[in-house]
Amino acid sequence: MIRYHLGWEDEQGLPDDAGGKALRASLCMLASEAVGGDSRRALPAAAAVELVHNFSLIHDDIQDRDSERHDRLTVWSIWGEAQAINAGDALLALARRSLMGLADRGTPPQVVNEAARVLDGRTLEMVEGQTLDISFEGMFEVTVADYMDMAGRKSGALFDCALSLGALAGGAAPQVITKLGQIGRTLGTAFQVRDDVLGVWGDPRVTGKPRGADIRRRKKSLPVVYALEQAEGVMRDELRHAYNKAELSEDDAVLVLQCLDETGARQYCVSVAQESKDVAVSALGELTLHADPAAELRETAEFLLDRDY
Amino acid sequence: MIRYHLGWEDEQGLPDDAGGKALRASLCMLASEAVGGDSRRALPAAAAVELVHNFSLIHDDIQDRDSERHDRLTVWSIWGEAQAINAGDALLALARRSLMGLADRGTPPQVVNEAARVLDGRTLEMVEGQTLDISFEGMFEVTVADYMDMAGRKSGALFDCALSLGALAGGAAPQVITKLGQIGRTLGTAFQVRDDVLGVWGDPRVTGKPRGADIRRRKKSLPVVYALEQAEGVMRDELRHAYNKAELSEDDAVLVLQCLDETGARQYCVSVAQESKDVAVSALGELTLHADPAAELRETAEFLLDRDY
Repeated sequence: MIRYHLGWEDEQGLPDDAGGKALRASLCMLASEAVGGDSRRALPAAAAVELVHNFSLIHDDIQDRDSERHDRLTVWSIWGEAQAINAGDALLALARRSLMGLADRGTPPQVVNEAARVLDGRTLEMVEGQTLDISFEGMFEVTVADYMDMAGRKSGALFDCALSLGALAGGAAPQVITKLGQIGRTLGTAFQVRDDVLGVWGDPRVTGKPRGADIRRRKKSLPVVYALEQAEGVMRDELRHAYNKAELSEDDAVLVLQCLDETGARQYCVSVAQESKDVAVSALGELTLHADPAAELRETAEFLLDRDY
Repeated sequence: MIRYHLGWEDEQGLPDDAGGKALRASLCMLASEAVGGDSRRALPAAAAVELVHNFSLIHDDIQDRDSERHDRLTVWSIWGEAQAINAGDALLALARRSLMGLADRGTPPQVVNEAARVLDGRTLEMVEGQTLDISFEGMFEVTVADYMDMAGRKSGALFDCALSLGALAGGAAPQVITKLGQIGRTLGTAFQVRDDVLGVWGDPRVTGKPRGADIRRRKKSLPVVYALEQAEGVMRDELRHAYNKAELSEDDAVLVLQCLDETGARQYCVSVAQESKDVAVSALGELTLHADPAAELRETAEFLLDRDY
């Protein structure tokens, strides 16, 4: 199940080549190089972050009842929910076991301990974010502030983890580790906002997700939270009425999209993501880092916010 | 959700007192004392093992569709599957965070790292055991050997973990840690066998589980695996026929119970559990341990095999 999910094998166990971007692993390695470390020493941490990310994807797919991810069946839709829960649990344990391998590549025991605390703490935050996100689906009074708090945990925490662990493995000073972690958190939150924009307006052929999928399942994504906050009068009533239904019809979805247009939700979200990215890139510029990996970190930040998928 | 599951709060968040036996935590503390350690220093490890156990209970209840545990509703049946998955995930992350607290109580960093590897490895084995157990439900050719391998991982690994971590925190020599871990594994496997016996013949008022529940859900528990191996002729065909159905009727359950009686499955299982316990107690006697905690470990082993619940 794990090899299938990671794209190394197909359903029958034959070799496949459907791996993901490994974005969080790359950020971890780049952070390590940026503080002057040897990225090979950071590999166990980079793998750990990627495995935690994949644990969350397997469980998210069960929770969201998503039967496909990037044109492949999800683990639960092949092996059933019970076994998919196990596959996710195993990945989380494997992530931790990978991290402890830092010790075998020369990271001092005390730093490995610190790294383990970072991974546990950020993983816990990520699960908190996921718990909030699901609880939002049944709530009306979700504010933009609530959303930002949720997104900071659900997506920001693991980007924070990636950069913090890279910096830790690279031997950076505590304040540099903290700053890189904050930069990661800001980027991760912007990444989630961009994801929300793609979830509503993205091209299904590029994102691999059906158009308007997030609206139909009544996700409290940022465009919707913003529109619910901004809409007034009849539009507000209609929006609330649509989101009060057990399931949204095609007509409801059209109405919601209209409300999003009229409140300028798309432009708002794009600005939020853009501003977060600017904050992160500017904070990056304030640190004394090795030039090449720092430039790659900046480019990755730009890519995160410009991507169509 | 977590406070509710641990029995500290009721469904409304009001104080409750419905905690479990904390058996694994006790074994961890006793092992620590038995090797001459201060059990207070082992507390973060004892808590970690107990939290891993509870993570597995929350996910098991989802997987087995159990709506009650010890006369209380299970987490998923109150908050839904999606949030219950999160509650279990959070407990696993919390377990790891608890373990790292060993460092704050004077355990050297290298030993803490070793403890983390033990917890991860045993947790992974436990998930493997759970994965095997579920896969057995759809299989006929499960042998007693397959069962023992599964039970060693599903239940033995975490008892191994409890004793190993206690011994580690108590400063024991590597070979003592390994031996105590093996004793734990043997005891945990026996505990699972005893659990299987109670799952078929236990008094529902004492076990808190409906009578014959494991049979009705076609669990490949040891009595059934043994009977499937031993039964011949018509009985074998009937047994296979009953276990081939999507759901077992009341009549099927009576038939299965009859097959178990005729093959002597109950006596076989009781002997297996008894012999495992004897092996564990005898191995305990071969170690040089502090007398009082070693006696308590022995008593706990006896309790594990005599319990009615």
